[in-house]
Amino acid sequence: MSPFTGSAQRTADWQHLRVSHDDGVTTVTLARPEKLNALTFEAYADLRDLLAELSRERHTRALVLGGEGRAFCSGGDVDEIIGATLEMDTSRLLDFNRMTGQVVRALREAPFPVVAAVHGAAAGAGAVLALASDFRVADPTARFAFLFTKVGLSGGDMGAAYLLPRVVGLGHATRILMLGDPVRAPEAERIGLISELTAEGEATGAASALARRLADGPALAHAQTKALLTAELDLPLSGAVELDAATQALLMHGADYAEFHAAFTEKRPPKWQGK
Amino acid sequence: MSPFTGSAQRTADWQHLRVSHDDGVTTVTLARPEKLNALTFEAYADLRDLLAELSRERHTRALVLGGEGRAFCSGGDVDEIIGATLEMDTSRLLDFNRMTGQVVRALREAPFPVVAAVHGAAAGAGAVLALASDFRVADPTARFAFLFTKVGLSGGDMGAAYLLPRVVGLGHATRILMLGDPVRAPEAERIGLISELTAEGEATGAASALARRLADGPALAHAQTKALLTAELDLPLSGAVELDAATQALLMHGADYAEFHAAFTEKRPPKWQGK
Amino acid sequence: MSPFTGSAQRTADWQHLRVSHDDGVTTVTLARPEKLNALTFEAYADLRDLLAELSRERHTRALVLGGEGRAFCSGGDVDEIIGATLEMDTSRLLDFNRMTGQVVRALREAPFPVVAAVHGAAAGAGAVLALASDFRVADPTARFAFLFTKVGLSGGDMGAAYLLPRVVGLGHATRILMLGDPVRAPEAERIGLISELTAEGEATGAASALARRLADGPALAHAQTKALLTAELDLPLSGAVELDAATQALLMHGADYAEFHAAFTEKRPPKWQGK
Repeated sequence: MSPFTGSAQRTADWQHLRVSHDDGVTTVTLARPEKLNALTFEAYADLRDLLAELSRERHTRALVLGGEGRAFCSGGDVDEIIGATLEMDTSRLLDFNRMTGQVVRALREAPFPVVAAVHGAAAGAGAVLALASDFRVADPTARFAFLFTKVGLSGGDMGAAYLLPRVVGLGHATRILMLGDPVRAPEAERIGLISELTAEGEATGAASALARRLADGPALAHAQTKALLTAELDLPLSGAVELDAATQALLMHGADYAEFHAAFTEKRPPKWQGK
Repeated sequence: MSPFTGSAQRTADWQHLRVSHDDGVTTVTLARPEKLNALTFEAYADLRDLLAELSRERHTRALVLGGEGRAFCSGGDVDEIIGATLEMDTSRLLDFNRMTGQVVRALREAPFPVVAAVHGAAAGAGAVLALASDFRVADPTARFAFLFTKVGLSGGDMGAAYLLPRVVGLGHATRILMLGDPVRAPEAERIGLISELTAEGEATGAASALARRLADGPALAHAQTKALLTAELDLPLSGAVELDAATQALLMHGADYAEFHAAFTEKRPPKWQGK
Repeated sequence: MSPFTGSAQRTADWQHLRVSHDDGVTTVTLARPEKLNALTFEAYADLRDLLAELSRERHTRALVLGGEGRAFCSGGDVDEIIGATLEMDTSRLLDFNRMTGQVVRALREAPFPVVAAVHGAAAGAGAVLALASDFRVADPTARFAFLFTKVGLSGGDMGAAYLLPRVVGLGHATRILMLGDPVRAPEAERIGLISELTAEGEATGAASALARRLADGPALAHAQTKALLTAELDLPLSGAVELDAATQALLMHGADYAEFHAAFTEKRPPKWQGK
């Protein structure tokens, strides 16, 4: 994504998500607590479009993704999504499933780290949104349920069969995606699915603190680290090493690298510009 | 694999394996307990051909792979295989090694999950058969020994250098394949090589119970989950997301997805057809 | 790499590394203890050239990489490297970053296993040298710090964004490379970054013992195991299985495979030739 824009307008009002900005940290909250933040067609579309806009605009240096109320996100709504898809024709079904996949690609390709704050259920698409984030900050109530087979669908939904084996290994991923059983916080931490385990009720605060640290740090370095992690899963060693070399050469001309050296020499903390 | 058939005949009698069917669950038992189920040329060929037939016939919705007696499988027989290969010319050696690799590809590409029931030694090719299965249900006597270097061969045998790093990570896989030392059950569980650890003597029963659960569940969803896990190890994120979208659109026209919604609405358990 | 040589001369004297040979085991020591073995441009160049020469000459069957004094390696020198790169033009920066990547490729593609002996800091490029080794034998003082973002650079340096997710999974790798915080020995062992944890002060001895075991064993089998592990990270399953088949057919014509069978038959330990 690039900040260059043409005629496209910014969206004036996100009606299906709560979005706030605070000095480089954007917080996106799934805010439908009476339904455990179940996703609707419109919420998926807003996530896709919001991530595209944020990726162009560049005022976001880190993003927190959380859920209001008792859960992170219970996934696609049984009535509003599953019921509705039963009436759709092939072309429409493909459009829907491509949209959910685009949300995951947008999360992986956004030029800023994404921190999911997980408490309670992260189920179905909710589990994949957390999985596609760069960090999963979770409290002991967190419960990841890749329950797709339990509704008769493939465990490979929205890139889960690509991402989960790369996060927890093929053995755990097969069990989790095939059976659809919930992974509770202790197991999730043990197998590497949680980045940071907090005390109960503190996931959102800790996720916001992490996003603040990322946004106030060398944000371009963070963004490029994310871009390279995403790209190099799909590159051979030779290409990865070349991409690293070009990226470091580029960043060695950047402001933050010079600032590090100046600060080190002057024995003071660096003042990062994210450039 | 596809169920369409032409002139090829079903094999009437598997002479080098014990095979039984029970309502969608096929159980394959290596039954040469006096040799710790060491494999012969004929046993490899039967595994390859059996998996191809089962993949066409579609009455198998889950498969259990186990061993009779004190071990799962001690690998290629020292006399009957190692001794014999010393007399083979290049072309024949390649034929043999391609056959063993075809067994692994057949396990990974079969349109049903494979549950290995492991107790005692899973050594050499036996360790790779377990590795290539989707689930490894093991009891505390299980001992995985990728002992190829100990006989002067590469630790990359039958896809082990591809699969093991994707299951346990490159660091553990390097150590295990290079040194060939046995991995006992506690370590195997810790590093993610075991899917389910049972009490002693209960691996076969637990593997059969798991296969029954898989066969009686939404079996097409399970089969597609496996197919996507296998394919997406070799796909970039963009291709994986597109494959997921097409697969879910397909399954959303399937009987089991509609059945889930009907059962949920009627507050009753779904009756899965595997379709 | 191949042992065939033309006009190129062996380097008579490695001025920026300490190198010794002992019956198939080459020991390379970063020997600048007053600077915690910080790397200079010349040390990188020597590592690149030494690994190329050793890969041609074939008297090395295993290599130990260690550091003298209180640390393994503190990475690129702040004054001699970071300061100097601030004055470089684009072309020169690319040359430098390509050189460091070539060291990592040389470690991964060398026809012998590399055992890193890690105590104290393994920071920046030092952490990546350890990561690119086949084994990390570490004592409890070991501290892996992929601190690139802390100097304003990408965490993907010298292939780290390719290698680390394949060793510890994408979740841990994202956290470690993005934040740059040190990974101490207990965590490193838990997530699979350490191959063997020793008592304090015993990493070098244990690494040398492991290299001796590797060099005295079936060294060609070890070398091919490494080559296949490296190659198969970048191959699909089908290509990996075919590469395994060709490699085993080749090694089945080798001396060590025949020797294993003879020794087994004669109930004596094999005398490995590494051929």
